Amino acid sequence: MKIIRRPEAMVAWSETLRREGVTIGFVPTMGALHEGHRSLIRAGRLRSDALVVSVFVNPTQFGPGEDLARYPRMPDRDHALCRTEGVDVCFEPTVDAMYPKGYQTVVTVSKIAQRWEGERRPHHFQGVATVVTKLFGIVQPHLAMFGQKDYQQAMLVRRLVQDLNLGVKIAVCPTVREPDGLAMSSRNIYLSEEERTIAPLLYKSLKAGGEAIRKGVIEAAAVQNTMAAVLKQEPRFTIEYLAVCDPLTLEPLAQVTSKAILLGAVRLGSVRLIDNLIVSPPRKRCGKEAMEIG
Amino acid sequence: MKIIRRPEAMVAWSETLRREGVTIGFVPTMGALHEGHRSLIRAGRLRSDALVVSVFVNPTQFGPGEDLARYPRMPDRDHALCRTEGVDVCFEPTVDAMYPKGYQTVVTVSKIAQRWEGERRPHHFQGVATVVTKLFGIVQPHLAMFGQKDYQQAMLVRRLVQDLNLGVKIAVCPTVREPDGLAMSSRNIYLSEEERTIAPLLYKSLKAGGEAIRKGVIEAAAVQNTMAAVLKQEPRFTIEYLAVCDPLTLEPLAQVTSKAILLGAVRLGSVRLIDNLIVSPPRKRCGKEAMEIG
Repeated sequence: MKIIRRPEAMVAWSETLRREGVTIGFVPTMGALHEGHRSLIRAGRLRSDALVVSVFVNPTQFGPGEDLARYPRMPDRDHALCRTEGVDVCFEPTVDAMYPKGYQTVVTVSKIAQRWEGERRPHHFQGVATVVTKLFGIVQPHLAMFGQKDYQQAMLVRRLVQDLNLGVKIAVCPTVREPDGLAMSSRNIYLSEEERTIAPLLYKSLKAGGEAIRKGVIEAAAVQNTMAAVLKQEPRFTIEYLAVCDPLTLEPLAQVTSKAILLGAVRLGSVRLIDNLIVSPPRKRCGKEAMEIG
Repeated sequence: MKIIRRPEAMVAWSETLRREGVTIGFVPTMGALHEGHRSLIRAGRLRSDALVVSVFVNPTQFGPGEDLARYPRMPDRDHALCRTEGVDVCFEPTVDAMYPKGYQTVVTVSKIAQRWEGERRPHHFQGVATVVTKLFGIVQPHLAMFGQKDYQQAMLVRRLVQDLNLGVKIAVCPTVREPDGLAMSSRNIYLSEEERTIAPLLYKSLKAGGEAIRKGVIEAAAVQNTMAAVLKQEPRFTIEYLAVCDPLTLEPLAQVTSKAILLGAVRLGSVRLIDNLIVSPPRKRCGKEAMEIG
């Protein structure tokens, strides 16, 4: 596996392969790789000839008071995982190489970035949109893999790619979970032992909401109450939002009549947890669908 | 010559050529092509294997009350000029294809976009930066040609390409002028006959400023006075700005001790005219330079 640090060297590598007709897959990460990343890498490996993983803790997507300084950095472990998974290039630029003196350009996706995470983390998605645009320019992938865990981010990147004609296919891969249901995240290491034991309740609350929908509950407010009731079993959770949304625009729904996404964000001690679940209401055996079944 | 209207068709054309190792040159325009565009096209032809000219009157770079509706459109003449000059593709997307329903992404270059034209035309450069990013994504050129006439725009695009790692070489070509010195512009057709006769005074004022610098005037304020004095011969001009700037950052200079750019913008009746001139102070025969001469 090649470790490339200079953006120009990464560009040169990708351009050579592209000219040879090689398809390039890409997994952008902030390092501290876990099983969630491994599944993105494996999905990327299956779907492309050459695979690039970037490791870059992007400062512009952290707000003041967020965890930029203490964000876990473990390059040796990351390299080992990438090697094991047959990654071709690990791209690890420095902050100065990405944002040199005189840097002054940002990419802003408006509507989809304003709610939920965007509301709680001002400028976060501008940082994400900008760094993803830059990384796509450098790595020039045909395909990039994003985790469903950061669902709003994945939808924002899809919007961005479409709007700016970046020509990269965006694949969203299922969230990988611990045996007790907690979504894998590099930030889970911030959890105390006690917090770790109750953290899976966020996913349980989403599942309870999903169960309600599958049983025919239509009103979003009722679904939200169901989710909140689960979390309120444990007073150490502070709910930031529990939302029932359109899966493409992430606008909140009043009623669930087709596929929806349940989004949850909570604080547990000093740690923020987010998770989500895609759900569909029960199929009505009538009209077009009945005909299909018939 | 191929006329392509659908962005996806343009992408496909460029991808095929890129895979074959063909270098693609690109001249983005708003149509109403004149001799200035012709010189960009010829420069692009010389420096690339295949040449794309885009014709797109981009609504997002016009402000309210600006001339979007009356901006000259003459597709047949534009096609004829492109054919004569050996252009391979004329890319003419519709507004709906560039900004479809749900579109929500903008590219913002901050510092370089804030002064001069940016101050007088809010959102203009955001519109330019966004559409250039999109056009580069669609056309995937190796090289793009911009006119020195819109100097601030050209520097903004250079900054943008560097900041977002777009991997396009930006060539800035000299302004083409009418015999009396007026810079070619699609908007010159807005000038009345009388306005047209006095319009070259803007370039004369820049030349007077340049002459002062070449004769050893160092203080920017003195250079500005020299320029303003020329324009004040003709009361129908309203000066918007006359500036002496750093040629890369476009920050105003207090003193001219190395290469500088003189920028001018005036109103003449209902028409805005801009122009610029790159100038260097006289070489001092001492120190390093004297050694080079010796």
